[in-house]
Amino acid sequence: MKLKNDLFLRACRKEKTERTPIWMMRQAGRFLPEYRAVREKADFLTMCKTPELAAKVTIQPVDIIGVDAAIIFSDILVIPEAMGMTLEMREKEGPILHNPIRDYQSANSLKKVKVNRDLKFVLDAIKLTKQELNNRVPLIGFSGSPWTLLTYMVEGRGSKNYDVVKKLIYSNPKLAHKILDKIAVAVSDYLSAQIDAGVDAVQIFDTWGGILAPAEFLEFSLQYVEKVIANITKKNEPVIFFAKGVHYKLKKISKCGADVLGVDWTMDLGKVKDLIGDKVALQGNLDPTVLLSSKKVIKQKAIEVLHSYGKGSGHIFNLGHGILPNSNPENAKYLVNIVKKESKVFHQKNSKKHW
Amino acid sequence: MKLKNDLFLRACRKEKTERTPIWMMRQAGRFLPEYRAVREKADFLTMCKTPELAAKVTIQPVDIIGVDAAIIFSDILVIPEAMGMTLEMREKEGPILHNPIRDYQSANSLKKVKVNRDLKFVLDAIKLTKQELNNRVPLIGFSGSPWTLLTYMVEGRGSKNYDVVKKLIYSNPKLAHKILDKIAVAVSDYLSAQIDAGVDAVQIFDTWGGILAPAEFLEFSLQYVEKVIANITKKNEPVIFFAKGVHYKLKKISKCGADVLGVDWTMDLGKVKDLIGDKVALQGNLDPTVLLSSKKVIKQKAIEVLHSYGKGSGHIFNLGHGILPNSNPENAKYLVNIVKKESKVFHQKNSKKHW
Repeated sequence: MKLKNDLFLRACRKEKTERTPIWMMRQAGRFLPEYRAVREKADFLTMCKTPELAAKVTIQPVDIIGVDAAIIFSDILVIPEAMGMTLEMREKEGPILHNPIRDYQSANSLKKVKVNRDLKFVLDAIKLTKQELNNRVPLIGFSGSPWTLLTYMVEGRGSKNYDVVKKLIYSNPKLAHKILDKIAVAVSDYLSAQIDAGVDAVQIFDTWGGILAPAEFLEFSLQYVEKVIANITKKNEPVIFFAKGVHYKLKKISKCGADVLGVDWTMDLGKVKDLIGDKVALQGNLDPTVLLSSKKVIKQKAIEVLHSYGKGSGHIFNLGHGILPNSNPENAKYLVNIVKKESKVFHQKNSKKHW
Repeated sequence: MKLKNDLFLRACRKEKTERTPIWMMRQAGRFLPEYRAVREKADFLTMCKTPELAAKVTIQPVDIIGVDAAIIFSDILVIPEAMGMTLEMREKEGPILHNPIRDYQSANSLKKVKVNRDLKFVLDAIKLTKQELNNRVPLIGFSGSPWTLLTYMVEGRGSKNYDVVKKLIYSNPKLAHKILDKIAVAVSDYLSAQIDAGVDAVQIFDTWGGILAPAEFLEFSLQYVEKVIANITKKNEPVIFFAKGVHYKLKKISKCGADVLGVDWTMDLGKVKDLIGDKVALQGNLDPTVLLSSKKVIKQKAIEVLHSYGKGSGHIFNLGHGILPNSNPENAKYLVNIVKKESKVFHQKNSKKHW
């Protein structure tokens, strides 16, 4: 049962690798015609809840663009749904959570999640995917962070200023903490169950961490990520924490218990490494819109990312956010090949720097 | 013709003041019932183009909430309109620029702006406002940065990923630079004319600077801000540069020619001051959503902002972005009073720190 390609896992643990591994956030997604073909026959939530379909689109980017890890096809909002909220995916508007949480009564009505019952479809999809992947590459599980889930659960839909959830934390922090506590339990149970079902690593997405001022980020997001990580039942599976837009408190974040920090494209990997030291690995951080340009530019910008991390282990190449639906699959494939080829020199002993 | 209250201008120049001045971005706006009363009778663009109405809403926050500076009521998209684009303000969707710029042909069709002809209504509004303000407080003029205007002109409307403009800069930087050059000329002419018409300071808003990776920010945004500032015809009027979401390259930004840097709420004023040194003043940076909470929280958070800047001159209190339409005017008034009162201690010689 040994993985044929375990580069991703070794990089997460900062062990030596012969090259830099690469995968892309949202790689099981609309940019692939093969994904759209599945999606045409089933709506998004049906895909999440049908293990055969979820496994199929999870494995597509491994086969088609050659990434070094798969990430289970799912959505972070399955947790609010499991807590009793009504989730609707609207084609243009994005996800809607009906009856958003706004008071003690609606907070109290949130159900305790029993993962093996309420989210069995995710665990089944993981088991099936592991089986079909047949140990070619590792499989990543994931969850939204408690703060990011709270944001959706309180706002109910996409927001420009996130003023409802931010009014909540400033006006009634006690209620916010009460809900966050509940969500954090669900998230750690959920990630533990995913590991139990077979994922080789987990990623916590804090998509909305960056809308907070530093003090509020520590109090309402990082604190709960720390709790989640401390409570995950795991053996040796790495944890990745990706807080988009969070450019502050990086040293503190690096001590949250995660093995890997995800970094968006506004940061310099080398500077982050200098700041936080050698404790955790880094994942990132090519601007996803680079994939909309030409091979020449993709190569140049990919090498810049490799160079900004520099020599040595502990870098997982990724985009700074999810791959865009209008990305050309040929460009994604080209990026994977370029990283596989051009990263070798950064892992050789005593070799000169690339430029 | 001397200003009765010139605290704002002295703070911009890092001269000694007896307290910290305060104004708020988007203070002439929907959060004020008195503004909404005017807006009910005229649409947004009619208000911009009718000097009496623009002057009226510009002065309202001075009278009603007691800020230390007025900012002329207008919109950054009057420049694309003056360059020949069709601007439409839609109530819910926000501004739309029809026929967005996507190729050499549409770029070439952009007209050279003659400010005194095409944007006379802004200059007339400034003159009238100065007259009616009667030197009570300074008047600030403004423009969007070339990059932020390019973003709107290429995307045509609000965007989630800004993928059209970012595809442009990665795929055809030559065309992007060509358009940015044209816009930069219009922006510096426009700001010069505003100064000529009587504004006491100008602010350049780079609302979309933060969507760029650091290298692209320098090449496609900061470079043009530097050109604009170098080309403004002015005497002694301070220039404020506010690049929302830009947390990198701060030292370089501090040398762009601006007298003041605007800072959003994700930064720590004291750390920015330590990093860039004593060269420029700082403006900011209370999270606008704090105004949605209680007086107790507003006081606490306002004092935290004052404390993060610390003792000495060169701080202009502001929000980290525009005041939200659902803010209570009583809370805005309270913030102004708190800052006026609590900031004194930060300007006294040898006084102890506030806490």
